[in-house]
Amino acid sequence: MAEEVILLDFWPSLFGMRVRIALREKGVEFDMREEDLSNKSPLLLKMNPVHKKIPILVHNGKPVCESLLIVQYIDESWVRESPLLPSDPYERARAGFWADYVDKKLYPAMRTMWLSTGEAQEAGKKEFIEFLKVLEGELGDKAYFGGETFGYVDVSLIPFYSWFYALDFSIVEECPKLVAWAKRCMQRESVAKSLPDQHKLRDFLLVLQKKLQAK
Amino acid sequence: MAEEVILLDFWPSLFGMRVRIALREKGVEFDMREEDLSNKSPLLLKMNPVHKKIPILVHNGKPVCESLLIVQYIDESWVRESPLLPSDPYERARAGFWADYVDKKLYPAMRTMWLSTGEAQEAGKKEFIEFLKVLEGELGDKAYFGGETFGYVDVSLIPFYSWFYALDFSIVEECPKLVAWAKRCMQRESVAKSLPDQHKLRDFLLVLQKKLQAK
Repeated sequence: MAEEVILLDFWPSLFGMRVRIALREKGVEFDMREEDLSNKSPLLLKMNPVHKKIPILVHNGKPVCESLLIVQYIDESWVRESPLLPSDPYERARAGFWADYVDKKLYPAMRTMWLSTGEAQEAGKKEFIEFLKVLEGELGDKAYFGGETFGYVDVSLIPFYSWFYALDFSIVEECPKLVAWAKRCMQRESVAKSLPDQHKLRDFLLVLQKKLQAK
Repeated sequence: MAEEVILLDFWPSLFGMRVRIALREKGVEFDMREEDLSNKSPLLLKMNPVHKKIPILVHNGKPVCESLLIVQYIDESWVRESPLLPSDPYERARAGFWADYVDKKLYPAMRTMWLSTGEAQEAGKKEFIEFLKVLEGELGDKAYFGGETFGYVDVSLIPFYSWFYALDFSIVEECPKLVAWAKRCMQRESVAKSLPDQHKLRDFLLVLQKKLQAK
């Protein structure tokens, strides 16, 4: 049976980018369907009735939700190409810890930085840089977070690079190793193809920022 | 080499309970070390310098943090007894989805219900019951969330039962299947031994509630 792989996605989504990268790392052909989040498709509502959120991977009719779980699912379902998670339980837990850190710390701080104004924005920026420095420390002198090969933590974090590039946010001084790592990741076809055009993303984020800050 | 398994924990912790249950399901002997969260031990600060939070499993000197990651680690490290996660990637992602739901939805709603007062508390209670009903729907007529055997989602959710029992919060009318499931879980030695005494927990939660509500 031919495999049917549909990705319900929204192009500027950091979480959607993770899934696109993982699928491309594995060489999986997929049908990316762009969702209008103000008018969600019946398929989206059917496939994720609990959270009603993208990204959703629909593999042979069955939905998998939540970006990190989808990346793990992809890694376990298409095992032949490019393993993303280590096989050792301790190293797996360690990778899980840092991906979780990105979701629990980095993402909320980036939202605050993006959507707040004045002092709150400054505080958010400071916190965001602190979190990035922790990640810079974890990366150290390794090529990728897991060592020599591109993997799970890299997939989880690299989408953020597109956002802060678009938001005109430079971390070259504070986190030079992280910047070098991001450039290394961007050389991979899977990443370059999955991250959106910077100008388009910048315009989108600025418009959305004004709309949300005005609320 | 004899294995050294240390659990840095705090007895009323919902997240610590998960780890205790998983270790007992696997028949792993462990040294549970009670932490004073107002004066954290040097071992805790060394083993989880990023979040400085319990539970932490220290296995032969190496730390594993974040309760759901610890339960997965235990499942992968002691494979012979009682598998907790399914082996099928789709079922694994599904179990991951519901454990994540417990953390992202149920836990914050329970905190609101517990720590707020007046209208906010009523709203929190309503939301909490809605989330429980979603879980009741997912459980359906199965014995456990994964089917016939006790597993990952059960481990993630059952600690909450101790808290709402201690908080005098009854869900018998709204969620009869969930109550029957909880009683089924409580018959397991791993669970019964890992959940704290109800009276002790109740006293503790009431004192802490007053302290935190006063802030």
